[in-house]
Amino acid sequence: MPVISKKGQLMPQSPIRKLAPYAEKAHKQGKTVYHLNIGQPDIKTPQIALDAVKVHSLDILSYTRSEGSEEYRDKIAAYYQKKDIKVTHDDIIVTTGGSEALLFAFGSVMDIDDEIIIPEPFYANYNGFSTASGVNIVPVISKIEDNFALPPISEFEKLITPKTKAILICNPGNPTGYLYSKEEIKQLAALVKKHDLFLIADEVYREFAYDGHIHYSIMQEEGLEEHAIMIDSVSKRYSMCGARIGCLVSRNKSVIQTALKFAQARLSPPTFAQIASEAALETPQSYFDNVIEEYVDRRNTLISELEKIEGVKVAKPNGAFYCVVELPIKNSDDFAQWLLEHFDINGETVMVAPAAGFYSTPGVGLNQIRIAYVLKKESLITAVHILKEALKIYKD
Amino acid sequence: MPVISKKGQLMPQSPIRKLAPYAEKAHKQGKTVYHLNIGQPDIKTPQIALDAVKVHSLDILSYTRSEGSEEYRDKIAAYYQKKDIKVTHDDIIVTTGGSEALLFAFGSVMDIDDEIIIPEPFYANYNGFSTASGVNIVPVISKIEDNFALPPISEFEKLITPKTKAILICNPGNPTGYLYSKEEIKQLAALVKKHDLFLIADEVYREFAYDGHIHYSIMQEEGLEEHAIMIDSVSKRYSMCGARIGCLVSRNKSVIQTALKFAQARLSPPTFAQIASEAALETPQSYFDNVIEEYVDRRNTLISELEKIEGVKVAKPNGAFYCVVELPIKNSDDFAQWLLEHFDINGETVMVAPAAGFYSTPGVGLNQIRIAYVLKKESLITAVHILKEALKIYKD
Repeated sequence: MPVISKKGQLMPQSPIRKLAPYAEKAHKQGKTVYHLNIGQPDIKTPQIALDAVKVHSLDILSYTRSEGSEEYRDKIAAYYQKKDIKVTHDDIIVTTGGSEALLFAFGSVMDIDDEIIIPEPFYANYNGFSTASGVNIVPVISKIEDNFALPPISEFEKLITPKTKAILICNPGNPTGYLYSKEEIKQLAALVKKHDLFLIADEVYREFAYDGHIHYSIMQEEGLEEHAIMIDSVSKRYSMCGARIGCLVSRNKSVIQTALKFAQARLSPPTFAQIASEAALETPQSYFDNVIEEYVDRRNTLISELEKIEGVKVAKPNGAFYCVVELPIKNSDDFAQWLLEHFDINGETVMVAPAAGFYSTPGVGLNQIRIAYVLKKESLITAVHILKEALKIYKD
Repeated sequence: MPVISKKGQLMPQSPIRKLAPYAEKAHKQGKTVYHLNIGQPDIKTPQIALDAVKVHSLDILSYTRSEGSEEYRDKIAAYYQKKDIKVTHDDIIVTTGGSEALLFAFGSVMDIDDEIIIPEPFYANYNGFSTASGVNIVPVISKIEDNFALPPISEFEKLITPKTKAILICNPGNPTGYLYSKEEIKQLAALVKKHDLFLIADEVYREFAYDGHIHYSIMQEEGLEEHAIMIDSVSKRYSMCGARIGCLVSRNKSVIQTALKFAQARLSPPTFAQIASEAALETPQSYFDNVIEEYVDRRNTLISELEKIEGVKVAKPNGAFYCVVELPIKNSDDFAQWLLEHFDINGETVMVAPAAGFYSTPGVGLNQIRIAYVLKKESLITAVHILKEALKIYKD
């Protein structure tokens, strides 16, 4: 019988996926499950984007250019220019979600067994993309006590080898919600210039910066033109996760030319989704203002409710819509499964993402969970109440 | 300055892409270019698929399941069952085009430096997918004199090494238009069973079988359950190239479980396109009857016109909508460029795909081109006339 590849065997399953069967069972038992585990916002997609697809006038649903239409890329460039990021359509390749942009970036800058340094905890699917690309993630631990701020540059330097090709950050961070400061970006910039590395920044949550903080992109940093590769997506910004449209942005011409070859091999990003994404760029600022107000309100509620629970430590996020929470337990994998299988209050329970899956170092983060505040305030209050009561009776 | 990966440098550019700047120049000069080079059909997408997206009622464009919705996969399974392919939704993973299905298949069954045997000439982007996956294509030459029939099994056996993990065929073939017979599939089945290999069949042109020939899928072959991986797509079947919806189909549970991990890492296939693709499954048979009648008519016209040119050899295709043509020239790369740059009849010229890019063996196919008969009959007649006149004056 033919056998599966080692790569295929090594492909990780996300920590949330492992819980899916238990969630399904809970649903089947008639339990209400508050999903604090997923990054799928409940925020409405801008009507202008939904409508654009409704009035399409296509006779033939044909390929677009592999790099996305020039018109759409022009509009993306205009969006970035408003954010003080000086790029043109030539610096942009439209991709099938941020996921594909990451795969193109990994393929363009790394060979088999090359290394990429990533502050952990990090977005779990980076593991999948690195396994698929045959490269190795070298984690550098950021700490809940520091709110998951950038680890000291000396910690990065300790990890740099001849195989190190890039540093990857997620800004603001999933799962941490941490927004890197301009100063931290400048430190990273100096580091990658010193060691001739690429700096890849996953900025898909770029619009979600709170409390007056301003997102500072690696693309704004002068002198980083040859090093900076930005990953972006419409998924979170416009609550269009199902569009599967993202982009890779770089002023490094070799990076763009190389990523374009990966893009050409798969022919074209999805056409309907590009129509919706192009229209989404006309979304008024008031939409974002409302969304951000909503998230800040949710976050404040979530944090203050969580802080009422004894033994719970919370990293206060100033971006994205996640936070990492330390619980007075030993193993959050078990706890998350137990919540679904064995706990409820009047038929209601909670699904959380165990944080160990966001760490690459074994044994770290076992007592942490990630909470996505993508539910309404009232639901968050109920969900945290359930968590509190559960912790009273849960035994490791 | 940071450097591009070797993999990125090795990523091939398709033979057609290299010509794109010359085509652009010809357009700018006001020339009319008959595009015989592309696989983008001019056939209308079924109205039912275009309309389904117009009446969508989504508030939030959210992720779907990574493997595609159960409902859509059920409908795909029903489509296959009508074709005597016994599969259920559990055997199907919905992908972002056939391209992604190929990447998932490559990743699931091959490790770095593993080998996959492919009859050449083959679809040029297989080169890109194998480079991206870090695996090596081992070509086995099929010949224009044999109409590009399956090479003798002994030729395959000569190439099998411990690193060989799979054989890939495209059926019917791009660029050859060759439809493998049931007998040929049985020969391949015996071969992969004997050597414990996977048999991957790219069947995206499965509906395009002419002259009463019936397409025989590797999924119909009994005893091949653990070996067979079918790649499919809505792109050509419904003239929906821009949807970017395909699927990977296998009864091998390990293959499906492994491909699913690749699918989960990239979250979900595009949602709007799945809506259109699900609706497309309701396309009446009359649509296909008309399309096939049209292609047969075009093919017959094309072949008979080409055969009027002295020194031209044509492999008569009985499937897909391509044919490979041998010309009385030395280098079709140069010829194709010359047609765009230096030749026209009353401001009209032709763009063809040089066939060397469809071969992996250096120096083979240099005097061949691929013609896609995706233009109306009248245009095909004019285009071949231009080709005929061009050959009279072209000097190698």
